[in-house]
Amino acid sequence: MASQRILIIGGGALGPKVACRLKRLRQDWEVTVVEQQEEIACSVCGIPYYISGDVSEIKGLMTASFQMVRSREFFENAKNVCVQTKTRALALDRKAKRVLVRHLETGDEQRLSYDKLVLATGRRPKSLDVPGCDLPGVISATTLRQAEDIRQRLSQGEVAKAVVVGAGPRGLEMTAAVSDLWGVETTLVEAGSHVLADLLDLPVARMVQQELQSRGVQVCLNESVTKIVSATGDNALEVVTSKQRLPADLVIVALGAEPRTELAVSAGLMVSPGGGVMVNQRLQTSDPDIYAGGGCIENLHLLTGRGTHFFEPSLAHRQGRVIGTNLAGDCAFFPGVIGSFTLKVFDLAVAGAGLTFEAARQEGLTPEAALVVQQDHAHFYPTQELIYLQLVVDRSSRRLLGVQGASANGDALVGRVNTIAALLLHRGTIEDLANLEAAYSPPYATALDIVNTVANTAENVVTGFNQSISVVDFQRLFLEEARDDIICLDVRGAANAAPFVARFKERWLNVPQETLKHRFSEIPRDKRIVLICNAGMRSYEALRQLQTHGFDNAVGLQGGVAALKKAGILIVE
Amino acid sequence: MASQRILIIGGGALGPKVACRLKRLRQDWEVTVVEQQEEIACSVCGIPYYISGDVSEIKGLMTASFQMVRSREFFENAKNVCVQTKTRALALDRKAKRVLVRHLETGDEQRLSYDKLVLATGRRPKSLDVPGCDLPGVISATTLRQAEDIRQRLSQGEVAKAVVVGAGPRGLEMTAAVSDLWGVETTLVEAGSHVLADLLDLPVARMVQQELQSRGVQVCLNESVTKIVSATGDNALEVVTSKQRLPADLVIVALGAEPRTELAVSAGLMVSPGGGVMVNQRLQTSDPDIYAGGGCIENLHLLTGRGTHFFEPSLAHRQGRVIGTNLAGDCAFFPGVIGSFTLKVFDLAVAGAGLTFEAARQEGLTPEAALVVQQDHAHFYPTQELIYLQLVVDRSSRRLLGVQGASANGDALVGRVNTIAALLLHRGTIEDLANLEAAYSPPYATALDIVNTVANTAENVVTGFNQSISVVDFQRLFLEEARDDIICLDVRGAANAAPFVARFKERWLNVPQETLKHRFSEIPRDKRIVLICNAGMRSYEALRQLQTHGFDNAVGLQGGVAALKKAGILIVE
Repeated sequence: MASQRILIIGGGALGPKVACRLKRLRQDWEVTVVEQQEEIACSVCGIPYYISGDVSEIKGLMTASFQMVRSREFFENAKNVCVQTKTRALALDRKAKRVLVRHLETGDEQRLSYDKLVLATGRRPKSLDVPGCDLPGVISATTLRQAEDIRQRLSQGEVAKAVVVGAGPRGLEMTAAVSDLWGVETTLVEAGSHVLADLLDLPVARMVQQELQSRGVQVCLNESVTKIVSATGDNALEVVTSKQRLPADLVIVALGAEPRTELAVSAGLMVSPGGGVMVNQRLQTSDPDIYAGGGCIENLHLLTGRGTHFFEPSLAHRQGRVIGTNLAGDCAFFPGVIGSFTLKVFDLAVAGAGLTFEAARQEGLTPEAALVVQQDHAHFYPTQELIYLQLVVDRSSRRLLGVQGASANGDALVGRVNTIAALLLHRGTIEDLANLEAAYSPPYATALDIVNTVANTAENVVTGFNQSISVVDFQRLFLEEARDDIICLDVRGAANAAPFVARFKERWLNVPQETLKHRFSEIPRDKRIVLICNAGMRSYEALRQLQTHGFDNAVGLQGGVAALKKAGILIVE
Repeated sequence: MASQRILIIGGGALGPKVACRLKRLRQDWEVTVVEQQEEIACSVCGIPYYISGDVSEIKGLMTASFQMVRSREFFENAKNVCVQTKTRALALDRKAKRVLVRHLETGDEQRLSYDKLVLATGRRPKSLDVPGCDLPGVISATTLRQAEDIRQRLSQGEVAKAVVVGAGPRGLEMTAAVSDLWGVETTLVEAGSHVLADLLDLPVARMVQQELQSRGVQVCLNESVTKIVSATGDNALEVVTSKQRLPADLVIVALGAEPRTELAVSAGLMVSPGGGVMVNQRLQTSDPDIYAGGGCIENLHLLTGRGTHFFEPSLAHRQGRVIGTNLAGDCAFFPGVIGSFTLKVFDLAVAGAGLTFEAARQEGLTPEAALVVQQDHAHFYPTQELIYLQLVVDRSSRRLLGVQGASANGDALVGRVNTIAALLLHRGTIEDLANLEAAYSPPYATALDIVNTVANTAENVVTGFNQSISVVDFQRLFLEEARDDIICLDVRGAANAAPFVARFKERWLNVPQETLKHRFSEIPRDKRIVLICNAGMRSYEALRQLQTHGFDNAVGLQGGVAALKKAGILIVE
């Protein structure tokens, strides 16, 4: 294949990856990356960890893993890739195969020719369109400059109070970053009904919310910012919401991001109604000489078969390789996304993949959810943490639809989520996961791994053997509405149950599961029964006993007292 | 379905699991478990951790996860399952559907009738058939009694020297158990050429060996025990091998285990040439009223399509559920195994799944191996460990065949292995793994996860872009044979390379990769070149540059200096 000129617009994660992959395949081709910022290929995903102090120097976000700074010179010398920073692409002439660029320092303009073009223009943060959104101190924290500015203000003690707008992944990471090490009094304002609403169903979201609140963060849900004003008191700003006025020295806007597509739109490339550049599985746009990937495209969601807004920076790395291979004349495919994610919220890891129960319902599927609480390591091994994992499956097809969970052991949680993600990609069923051969050894797993247990529980739910309610429904029915036709039947030992019996009196019965078979006569038949145990296992055992003895109005509490406590719903000591 | 009598022979992992699952589905059925030992459902996999002191009380291995002892009474009360311990099954009359059992304490015999029978007879440790193998102090450490005995002797200071025979998983766990906390001087004797020979190829096995040696364990390979004799000196025993005489106070025999099938054989059930009870995918034996699972059966290996000796206790838990479901009249399948495993060797986690390169070669496949060394977390994140991961793929079909690796972060390693195991189960290809959507966040992963990187590297190997040699071949060719037609080209910075250049003189050139494009003239064209960097990435970059400039005799060192060091092959400070 004759040497070609490849032009790449954008120097975030995707552009440099395309360039490096392509150059390794075709050393003699001319590859140029144009980037409007000063830096190239920086790890903007690391910004919260720089702000928190976990990453001590900003340079840490500008280096490759062997500590070389990813500078223009690095790309020239080590990768043989030509990089033009501080250079903005202004217009794309597809007929002439040229891009007009402006060098931002000199103002000089230049036309760059290409044989093949790559759009790697990424995403721009969504702005908070309210009065005062452009005041100093209102910031999106998406560039290294902004990160340095925030950290400097934090380290100089200039920030006593912060407001974070938006409880998506970046909002939560930034909340932890400013409040953990720096002790900033932080309020999180979210217009939706729960944190991480696009990624989690309510039971797991409540665990995240509890982690935030236990660390002193004020979480304001169903509340939107109406304006921001300069203040005259101790704090520089005041955030006015639909419900209150919040003083703040710093306002971090974290409303997500949207594809940057002006160049594509103006050049007449196909862009989806959702606003992303449309590509085929080889990541070609509607112009076969132009490829696109990363934040600026619309991805196919493999579980819904439709376009999705979902984006994760790691997608850009995988897509970059596919584009590089295709540019070189080989053939590679990027089939689509399933929505894997993880993040750290203080000391809690949160992760998931696929669809939430709610998203699956909206897709017209027939979802069921199963939540399991189980140790990461063998119960007799000295180091262990609990994993809280919810599986979403489709009742009719028995297909896996999604997983989400939380744990103090992030490595263990992410491992489980990735394992299930691999099956999601292959249209796996409940049975596939039940039989999945997870590696076992006491220091690293339980003999029946939680991925197997959660599949078994889902199967019991689908077949109707296991009938349960979530901690959120429990909260509403038993605690808030305090309905007198519902009682709890606590099947744990007397010592565990006693404080609950003391608090809820005749609404909370205690019959240890191992004595249940002799004590059916003590269980009321005219009430709805919620079975309670530590994590859900003994409740299920008791449920089966009750069902066999004609109790048709009993359900188990998903995840038991462990889940209630983790979600901050009921903590009785 | 009318109530049935179910008899289960064996109370290890499988039997109780079958019983509990079945009782949950069919509360009114009569389910009996017969077990010859005193205990039932104990965690024998935890024995090394009890001996090491990680598990303080032996009771820890006899409890369920909510701390109830798995006693006969527990199964009667909590699970409604009848258990007869200290009871041995002597004969099976399939025609009369009866099993003759003997109560070992009283000597009484009894015939137990069944509608359906389950063989859960497990495995017996392979014995060391040499003179002296039955001397006191020669022990397999596979029962709780033996474990208590060993730990008592250790804690009373009676064991100064130990010999462990067999470098399989249990042998390594026991080696670490006696030498880590108790400081016993331990020698590991293995007849094969490397540790964990059935599970690992040489490059990863050498990393495990290095971990053992760095902790003071003497590792004797290609060496077999010929006899054991009582000694008169400081130590009670002497182990005589094909090469030396080893004094010892304790000899632990860990040669693996084999299916216990006498009952099946004598009753005329089909048993494979390999010695396991044969079952179909519903885990029925050749008698449809008799099911079998766990250690006593032969499993189908899903990657070879043939029967396998591979066994892991966690398989019993998954198979138990399948049998329970089938007994209840429902339909469940166990498709086969892929060979997932993990173990802890001192502070090193080892894990894998699928076929080794060597096993794949013996199957007549066309395997290629790719080894990658990469961080578990983002390179800028403060906590990180290296993961060493080798992928085995089939060159012709591009199918994934196996994975194996080592890391100080066991949770992270096991997560990666399980993820790849999920794809192995689904006949995944290199491309599937390259695009696998691993969840990313700096505290838990790298932007391009090692599962993606290792797939990309394998793809580069298969397409011929990446040509490399293993650390083991490097050791032989460059260090041992010291062939003068081979030079190392170290493409790291001068500071890293300097001590190597000092040691190997003109056989070790240093040209940092980022300067290589100006210095081709310095590279000899008449030598074979081994490219060296920290972990393999820059070597590959340099390899592509050299190949383009007509050097056709260069290869990269797999895993770079990190892998050399980890394998204990070349440590230059």
